[in-house]
Amino acid sequence: MPKKLITFGEVMMRLSPPGYEKFSQASSFELVYGGGEANAAISCAYLGMKAAHVTRFPDNALGKAATQFLRKHWLSTEHVIYGDQMMGKYFLEKGAVHRSSEVIYEREGSAFSQIKPSMINWEEVLRDADWFHWTGITPAISEGAAQCCLEAIKTANKLGITVSGDINSRSNMWKYGRPMQEVIPSLTEYSDVVITSSRGIREMFGIGNDEDSFKSLSKQLIAANPHIKKVVKKTRRTLSASHHQIQGKIWNGKKYIKTDMLNITHIIDRVGTGDAFAAGLIYGLLHFDDEKAIDFAASACALKHTVPGDVNTVSLENVISLMQGNTSGAIVR
Amino acid sequence: MPKKLITFGEVMMRLSPPGYEKFSQASSFELVYGGGEANAAISCAYLGMKAAHVTRFPDNALGKAATQFLRKHWLSTEHVIYGDQMMGKYFLEKGAVHRSSEVIYEREGSAFSQIKPSMINWEEVLRDADWFHWTGITPAISEGAAQCCLEAIKTANKLGITVSGDINSRSNMWKYGRPMQEVIPSLTEYSDVVITSSRGIREMFGIGNDEDSFKSLSKQLIAANPHIKKVVKKTRRTLSASHHQIQGKIWNGKKYIKTDMLNITHIIDRVGTGDAFAAGLIYGLLHFDDEKAIDFAASACALKHTVPGDVNTVSLENVISLMQGNTSGAIVR
Amino acid sequence: MPKKLITFGEVMMRLSPPGYEKFSQASSFELVYGGGEANAAISCAYLGMKAAHVTRFPDNALGKAATQFLRKHWLSTEHVIYGDQMMGKYFLEKGAVHRSSEVIYEREGSAFSQIKPSMINWEEVLRDADWFHWTGITPAISEGAAQCCLEAIKTANKLGITVSGDINSRSNMWKYGRPMQEVIPSLTEYSDVVITSSRGIREMFGIGNDEDSFKSLSKQLIAANPHIKKVVKKTRRTLSASHHQIQGKIWNGKKYIKTDMLNITHIIDRVGTGDAFAAGLIYGLLHFDDEKAIDFAASACALKHTVPGDVNTVSLENVISLMQGNTSGAIVR
Amino acid sequence: MPKKLITFGEVMMRLSPPGYEKFSQASSFELVYGGGEANAAISCAYLGMKAAHVTRFPDNALGKAATQFLRKHWLSTEHVIYGDQMMGKYFLEKGAVHRSSEVIYEREGSAFSQIKPSMINWEEVLRDADWFHWTGITPAISEGAAQCCLEAIKTANKLGITVSGDINSRSNMWKYGRPMQEVIPSLTEYSDVVITSSRGIREMFGIGNDEDSFKSLSKQLIAANPHIKKVVKKTRRTLSASHHQIQGKIWNGKKYIKTDMLNITHIIDRVGTGDAFAAGLIYGLLHFDDEKAIDFAASACALKHTVPGDVNTVSLENVISLMQGNTSGAIVR
Amino acid sequence: MPKKLITFGEVMMRLSPPGYEKFSQASSFELVYGGGEANAAISCAYLGMKAAHVTRFPDNALGKAATQFLRKHWLSTEHVIYGDQMMGKYFLEKGAVHRSSEVIYEREGSAFSQIKPSMINWEEVLRDADWFHWTGITPAISEGAAQCCLEAIKTANKLGITVSGDINSRSNMWKYGRPMQEVIPSLTEYSDVVITSSRGIREMFGIGNDEDSFKSLSKQLIAANPHIKKVVKKTRRTLSASHHQIQGKIWNGKKYIKTDMLNITHIIDRVGTGDAFAAGLIYGLLHFDDEKAIDFAASACALKHTVPGDVNTVSLENVISLMQGNTSGAIVR
Amino acid sequence: MPKKLITFGEVMMRLSPPGYEKFSQASSFELVYGGGEANAAISCAYLGMKAAHVTRFPDNALGKAATQFLRKHWLSTEHVIYGDQMMGKYFLEKGAVHRSSEVIYEREGSAFSQIKPSMINWEEVLRDADWFHWTGITPAISEGAAQCCLEAIKTANKLGITVSGDINSRSNMWKYGRPMQEVIPSLTEYSDVVITSSRGIREMFGIGNDEDSFKSLSKQLIAANPHIKKVVKKTRRTLSASHHQIQGKIWNGKKYIKTDMLNITHIIDRVGTGDAFAAGLIYGLLHFDDEKAIDFAASACALKHTVPGDVNTVSLENVISLMQGNTSGAIVR
Repeated sequence: MPKKLITFGEVMMRLSPPGYEKFSQASSFELVYGGGEANAAISCAYLGMKAAHVTRFPDNALGKAATQFLRKHWLSTEHVIYGDQMMGKYFLEKGAVHRSSEVIYEREGSAFSQIKPSMINWEEVLRDADWFHWTGITPAISEGAAQCCLEAIKTANKLGITVSGDINSRSNMWKYGRPMQEVIPSLTEYSDVVITSSRGIREMFGIGNDEDSFKSLSKQLIAANPHIKKVVKKTRRTLSASHHQIQGKIWNGKKYIKTDMLNITHIIDRVGTGDAFAAGLIYGLLHFDDEKAIDFAASACALKHTVPGDVNTVSLENVISLMQGNTSGAIVR
Repeated sequence: MPKKLITFGEVMMRLSPPGYEKFSQASSFELVYGGGEANAAISCAYLGMKAAHVTRFPDNALGKAATQFLRKHWLSTEHVIYGDQMMGKYFLEKGAVHRSSEVIYEREGSAFSQIKPSMINWEEVLRDADWFHWTGITPAISEGAAQCCLEAIKTANKLGITVSGDINSRSNMWKYGRPMQEVIPSLTEYSDVVITSSRGIREMFGIGNDEDSFKSLSKQLIAANPHIKKVVKKTRRTLSASHHQIQGKIWNGKKYIKTDMLNITHIIDRVGTGDAFAAGLIYGLLHFDDEKAIDFAASACALKHTVPGDVNTVSLENVISLMQGNTSGAIVR
Repeated sequence: MPKKLITFGEVMMRLSPPGYEKFSQASSFELVYGGGEANAAISCAYLGMKAAHVTRFPDNALGKAATQFLRKHWLSTEHVIYGDQMMGKYFLEKGAVHRSSEVIYEREGSAFSQIKPSMINWEEVLRDADWFHWTGITPAISEGAAQCCLEAIKTANKLGITVSGDINSRSNMWKYGRPMQEVIPSLTEYSDVVITSSRGIREMFGIGNDEDSFKSLSKQLIAANPHIKKVVKKTRRTLSASHHQIQGKIWNGKKYIKTDMLNITHIIDRVGTGDAFAAGLIYGLLHFDDEKAIDFAASACALKHTVPGDVNTVSLENVISLMQGNTSGAIVR
Repeated sequence: MPKKLITFGEVMMRLSPPGYEKFSQASSFELVYGGGEANAAISCAYLGMKAAHVTRFPDNALGKAATQFLRKHWLSTEHVIYGDQMMGKYFLEKGAVHRSSEVIYEREGSAFSQIKPSMINWEEVLRDADWFHWTGITPAISEGAAQCCLEAIKTANKLGITVSGDINSRSNMWKYGRPMQEVIPSLTEYSDVVITSSRGIREMFGIGNDEDSFKSLSKQLIAANPHIKKVVKKTRRTLSASHHQIQGKIWNGKKYIKTDMLNITHIIDRVGTGDAFAAGLIYGLLHFDDEKAIDFAASACALKHTVPGDVNTVSLENVISLMQGNTSGAIVR
Repeated sequence: MPKKLITFGEVMMRLSPPGYEKFSQASSFELVYGGGEANAAISCAYLGMKAAHVTRFPDNALGKAATQFLRKHWLSTEHVIYGDQMMGKYFLEKGAVHRSSEVIYEREGSAFSQIKPSMINWEEVLRDADWFHWTGITPAISEGAAQCCLEAIKTANKLGITVSGDINSRSNMWKYGRPMQEVIPSLTEYSDVVITSSRGIREMFGIGNDEDSFKSLSKQLIAANPHIKKVVKKTRRTLSASHHQIQGKIWNGKKYIKTDMLNITHIIDRVGTGDAFAAGLIYGLLHFDDEKAIDFAASACALKHTVPGDVNTVSLENVISLMQGNTSGAIVR
Repeated sequence: MPKKLITFGEVMMRLSPPGYEKFSQASSFELVYGGGEANAAISCAYLGMKAAHVTRFPDNALGKAATQFLRKHWLSTEHVIYGDQMMGKYFLEKGAVHRSSEVIYEREGSAFSQIKPSMINWEEVLRDADWFHWTGITPAISEGAAQCCLEAIKTANKLGITVSGDINSRSNMWKYGRPMQEVIPSLTEYSDVVITSSRGIREMFGIGNDEDSFKSLSKQLIAANPHIKKVVKKTRRTLSASHHQIQGKIWNGKKYIKTDMLNITHIIDRVGTGDAFAAGLIYGLLHFDDEKAIDFAASACALKHTVPGDVNTVSLENVISLMQGNTSGAIVR
């Protein structure tokens, strides 16, 4: 019986010029959809889990098409709700070597940002789920989104479902009035697993200082938030837009584990690699011990760099093979 | 010395699934740009006139790319202004036969809708122009857009520049508070040429009744608005999404002229055909007598149905050839 | 509470050269999926019904991708089974005017053709369904497929679910040994609605002769098969590969009803139009009286001619609008 | 044993914007190759004949690629010669309805135009051939091309091979000094079959006047050129760029035969339809009586209007089916 | 006078998602054709040799199109035979970095697999050839294919034509009953050049053991099979799916020669690189001494990694330049 | 007030097979335009300067489309002139790793090559400009082009406008009669900045010998040509077609400055990188000191390697970021 994951968050239309064209050169856009939480859910679905995503789309043909994207990629969509008219979207210009990728968001006023508490029946949504996953983007979008997220987390707590939160410190996203330092801790307070960074812990929780290691910061975070069981970090070395290195780290309250550094020498699409890491972690913690789990997460993340689009469509076999050290990418016939 | 046209209005990013795919089938969008007034300006530029378009784009790479589209299609863009972050856009699903094309707008909150009076220096923009053209869409977008449009029209009057307005009765577009029955007449009051329909005259001006012919309504409109010199109408018979018929009609205060019906049997893209008609009329009235002008307008309109995208890129020779009755479309080598 | 349809049959990968290229010119294939029964299910899903399709796909990445196509187009796929290695497929070269479309099938030995009785738990599949639909293609594929189809029909009878069969007389499809004259009647014997043609009735049931009208043949068919309640026909006049005319006819035991002839002047893709008719009929009979139902079926069929791919993705509003006589295909904004 | 055709002439790279884009809109070109004589040879090869084309390409990768196009479409290319650097080419913008297709040639100075007498060993090329076909374009290109063409025709005469010439009156092509009225008759003098028009006979041969029917002109042409056995004409009614009608006519010295008018209501690509007619005529005269031959030619021509590119890739079965009156274009499965 | 190569084997339709899309993401397939032996023949043809490929295709439009692919790439196809209905095919999903490419074959029951002895007239096919090349895939396909291959090899022996076999140990391909250990040696027994690996020699011939070097194994192989003159190996180091290293090795009975390691840092398409090596070897042995030949083979192989598709379309100049140590890939103008 | 650059030279249509296809594989061409001088002008325009390009295009739709490309990329085109019929063009096959890119030019007889002295009113063109830039390609095209270039340079001198020349030693381009050793020095004689190489100085000016360093050669060049103020060089190490290293060097009469080596590990399109260097130099010298200027030039050059097409469309921010050492290419949101 596969484990079941519920995620909640905005899914955006992603529009990108073909290949390496810049915005100034494009005469068409490639169309996929993405959003941190749905990306994680889809990753887990490809790994063999059951997964449902909860979101709000505009009540028109574009909202339907976005739903169809989620269905195609194996998600349950019966809890998607519809209203208003605007689809959140982002434009992505893919960079290479020294040239940065550029992202332009158009999500202000989107159908999702208009979501309000109690629009979602979380008791029903989370019934028979094993895991609920949220990210720090959702509470940054709007007061309503933050409140819905809190509703979901509290319901998960009530139903005994594990909760993970993937939070980065992006203060420029917080525009609706409340500071991230107030909102984020009110959500992690009820979360079991937190994926973040040293800077994230310092800035969002006011914990530790610049000299503290990630391990030390993690200990302090757990000390201050006893609900949190594990603190996880993905280290990314950005050698160029075409070449990254990835490493996973976890503090589980007892042990500090680091993976080998994975070397991604020819990046195809780096968007959503963090979500692939989160998905790998969720799958790993549900099926393996912590050491294997963090290896699995880093391997899933590394593979995502070679898959176009926001979502990681690799299979369980692919991830396990890389986790076991098979980095050669030899043809499978 | 070519005549010079100035237009003012929103230019939207147009995103459409390839060929006849429906939104539910698309994995990419074709990207062009369009907007009633800019469409007319570009048409006139292809016919050999000088033309500049005035608009407001978001201050980012997408706003730049939209500007580049206008430049590519021969417009002057030195009066384009930039601000805010959202690009107006529309999604177009192309129909055929009994299946309607479907359009979804996302223009609320766009950079253009945020335009405010005196953002544009109309004295400078209109200096050395011969014609100013506006449409009924602009005053429907926002109070600020309506006011800018009025500024432009009054400045044109002051400088002795001919003003044309292309107005349809689309009451569902008017959302910001003032009714079209109040705003539109305040703009046509200073316009020389009005393109509209019988329903438009009845609904927007409260003139005439259902029994009145277009000729009769036109007379009443001019009687009530002495600044108006010519009232023009494009009759479209929609046999199917793939087959239309087009006819032009003009009342110039003295004479009522109708063109032959043009039969467009295999439509490629009907969006922007009304703007091509307006452009043909502007060019025609600047270069021919009224009879030829309305023939020219209908011919330009008919040709646009065979050109993909919003804008009419046919040449003066193309239009004149059709105006002279050459409907055979034989290869030009 | 939407009505629920279950369908059963092979779904093939459809590979077609872009546009009007011939096989000899293609350097790529457009990829969609289709099969008569799944096409009908998808049509009904777009109209707002619940629909699940039952089939057997190869147990590899291609079988998964085919499943994803069905999910994307709103079908439930939890009853899809997997086994063997070969995907059924067909190659389609699209014709125009006097040039015929050409279809090459490669379905021999496909995963579906290897299906065996009791591989599907029909009691579970059909629980809470309102309608079961099959076509004459399934029993032609293999003995196993024919037997599974009979299992399904009998289970539907037991559960009180309406059964429809869409059967054409294609004797060249029957290669595994048993003649269609033996197998088809053993399935229609338990069906409530039969879609067929005059030739079909004569050839598959040995009923009537060349002089008999469709009405007369239908009466005789019902007389000989009392389970059948309604006999339905779609008349197609093929003026050219680009221009067809469609009319629906139904004999419901009491009344013979014919629709107006619908004139499809610019065909985009005629594959799957018969399935769109069947879907329209199913939806119509579940929601309207027979007269409206046959009108609805013909309208759905006509609209499919303008949609690329095998499946009819038009909405309920689209079909109702055409059913009400709106043939103009005017833009919907 | 299939009959063998030899053709001689320039093959150009054809560059056309996708779909109905105008030159001003294109960001890519579709690439095929074409030339009147090679088009005819390829048509005949698809019909089942052996065919070799003789031409001169630039001695670089583009000349090689052009050769590969001919090979792909079944021609023998062992007599192609290489030299100089420029590939002849033409740019094609596809029109629709009232909008003309536009063609821009860039063939001046091409490798083919530099061909010189005795570069081709015609004895070897024509050995075991049944038919040699030339068009009026070749002698218009350059003095060298005209002389090579004459060499070929005379050699064909010597070897007892039937010669056909497809000549139109395009005086604007003749730029190298000698008038078409001098060159063309020097070639038809040795030809057995001439495809031309009434205007062609009058202008190129100075025969007849405006009142003369095609039949009458044909008689006069044969009277003046006893080597000519048959005079053939393709009548084209150009209702629009999307809708043509085609009829074949032949005077064989004894009888004047006209085919039915074929109605091509949805043109895909009209370029090369005249060459398809010529090919159909060659095939027809080699395999049928004159009445069937002209029917076959008109049918082949009609079908070409539905095939993208310059060359007619339809099969013998396709043409025979249409020749027998099957205009319905029903799917072949 | 160029040397002439004959090859024999299945040619498959290759269908691959564009770019780096996975099967689950594709909405179209790029279409080329490939097969080990034909790939080698085409490589040699691009290098300037004459080459003909012998195979069996389905007797339909797809079989014709596959033939046209071979013709386009310079092969003679007059010995291709046609029968049955199924085209062998494979689906290729291209990997990158740690993500493997995945291949799904559908060749069971293909037209080629149904080939039977004496369907090919080898005396006629091999007349005036210089070299016959086969691979270990052909005898693995079916008993009939194995027997045809043996017929060809024996005929080549009779006619004094050099025979090469490229054999890998893929035991999972052998499904029709006879083991590779029985069939392969019966074919190499009559071959002059064998391309294989250490594992291949051990597993297919039961020669040597894990400690033996390739040189030692080669000596033993020749000792046991005196017809064999040269044993060749291509060493591939798979650093990732995007980065390989290639080295050639040859034992010619007297001398053991190794090339430098070629470093392919940005792989475009690695399929067919082994066939490019074989082709380079054939060309090399026919035109150079063994030392140059193995350098030439490795260089050809390295270049193929940068060419999309199965076949190596680089020119003789390209290979010689790299063979001479020019690894810089500087622009050629 | 932005600085204004004027450039003069041929702009060619660039036709390239998609991705890494070779000419023998292409069935379409991607279409952009390029030419050394216009490339530099467009680069500068993207950096924020005003820029106008002067050239001569054929007087047809292709010449118009080329002009539109320049307009789209921000250039002023009011000084473009039209005449004759042939568009200069080049075909580009993109290489990778060891496989060279291949370029085939077709520019002989182009509209630009027919340009004649005094066709351009340089006084008017250069009025209010700050910089005039030419390259060594222009005087190599034709006598007329060389003379026009000299006219421009002398006018620039008269108006006190800085002149830069980018000259390489490509003797195989010089076909019209005069040697580069005669023409080039007659142009640099009046130029302020010269971009060249050690070989260029030796071969074109007969200065120095193989042992001389670039610094030493630069000194000698300035000594012999006192009008020259700065001599600049771009060093390129070509590790493979996919991996280059770039370094800038400048001698300004007083100081010899070298930049760090920039490592471009995954090249997207290397064409036009030299022009991007020249543009960066022009912008740099106009806005920074020499040390920063050469850094800016090298950074602009490096970034161009990641932009498809001939022209560098990166922004001022992009270049400055890299100039400041930010080589990581991290996403910009």
